[in-house]
Amino acid sequence: MHPEATRLIGIDPGLQKTGWGIIDISGTSLRLVDSGRIKPNPNRPIAERLKFLSQELDAILLQYEPHDAAIEETFVNQNPTTSLKLGMARGAAILTLANRNLSVAEYAPNKIKKSVTGQGHATKQQIGMMVKVLLPACGELGEDEADALAIAITHAHYHK
Amino acid sequence: MHPEATRLIGIDPGLQKTGWGIIDISGTSLRLVDSGRIKPNPNRPIAERLKFLSQELDAILLQYEPHDAAIEETFVNQNPTTSLKLGMARGAAILTLANRNLSVAEYAPNKIKKSVTGQGHATKQQIGMMVKVLLPACGELGEDEADALAIAITHAHYHK
Repeated sequence: MHPEATRLIGIDPGLQKTGWGIIDISGTSLRLVDSGRIKPNPNRPIAERLKFLSQELDAILLQYEPHDAAIEETFVNQNPTTSLKLGMARGAAILTLANRNLSVAEYAPNKIKKSVTGQGHATKQQIGMMVKVLLPACGELGEDEADALAIAITHAHYHK
Repeated sequence: MHPEATRLIGIDPGLQKTGWGIIDISGTSLRLVDSGRIKPNPNRPIAERLKFLSQELDAILLQYEPHDAAIEETFVNQNPTTSLKLGMARGAAILTLANRNLSVAEYAPNKIKKSVTGQGHATKQQIGMMVKVLLPACGELGEDEADALAIAITHAHYHK
């Protein structure tokens, strides 16, 4: 990492898949560090799945030592059961970040879309394409990984 | 604690208030160990509130060393925003228990009501009254504390 760079992690939490993406910002330049997804075994009890999610995320934090973290403000236009499960994954992820003394910025979905594509109503495909333009080294990305990188890019725009 | 007793913790998680209650079971006898509530500062960011909830709960686990934990299966007949917040508190609590290698049993609300009062449709007041009958040492309890003890009592019934 460049000595003046700031390292940011974006996270797209979910109980089935949690996407994560790390970038370095230095002035106006962005650089991809790494990205991936955490997939707890859906056949295991919820406590084990949350523990797995937290341990994997914590290993990533220890490896890359980001300075700051961001997450999407969750859409709650869903059914309550989905919201409850999403909330549990989100709570476990935020707690893991907070336990490493990272502050966790939250951005509304429209703000993320606008930051990355210039449009507040961009599609998932448009977001994925723009993430590749902004971070050419990223290669093929899963949707949740692209979302996590989009969140990190948004935080790069607003972060001071 | 009696050498043959099993110690159980029941938890009623919430972002505003998390009730907890610990009992010892020895054969068919129940004994209150302690109960209380954790109230994170509602004016602080969500990451800090989850961290506070987790740290307080972890201190309780270290102090009392329960053998097993139980939680209520959450009602999801609510609006999605409430479910998301409840999910975050629940995820943080379950993760904290799992990190201490406690398995976390879940019981449906009707099962808890039936275990404690004999009726699946008991009111909060009836639950509170029966908790006092079963654990006379408990004194005045907040609703979330009584619920947490009711969950622990239910686990005592089903726990092997």
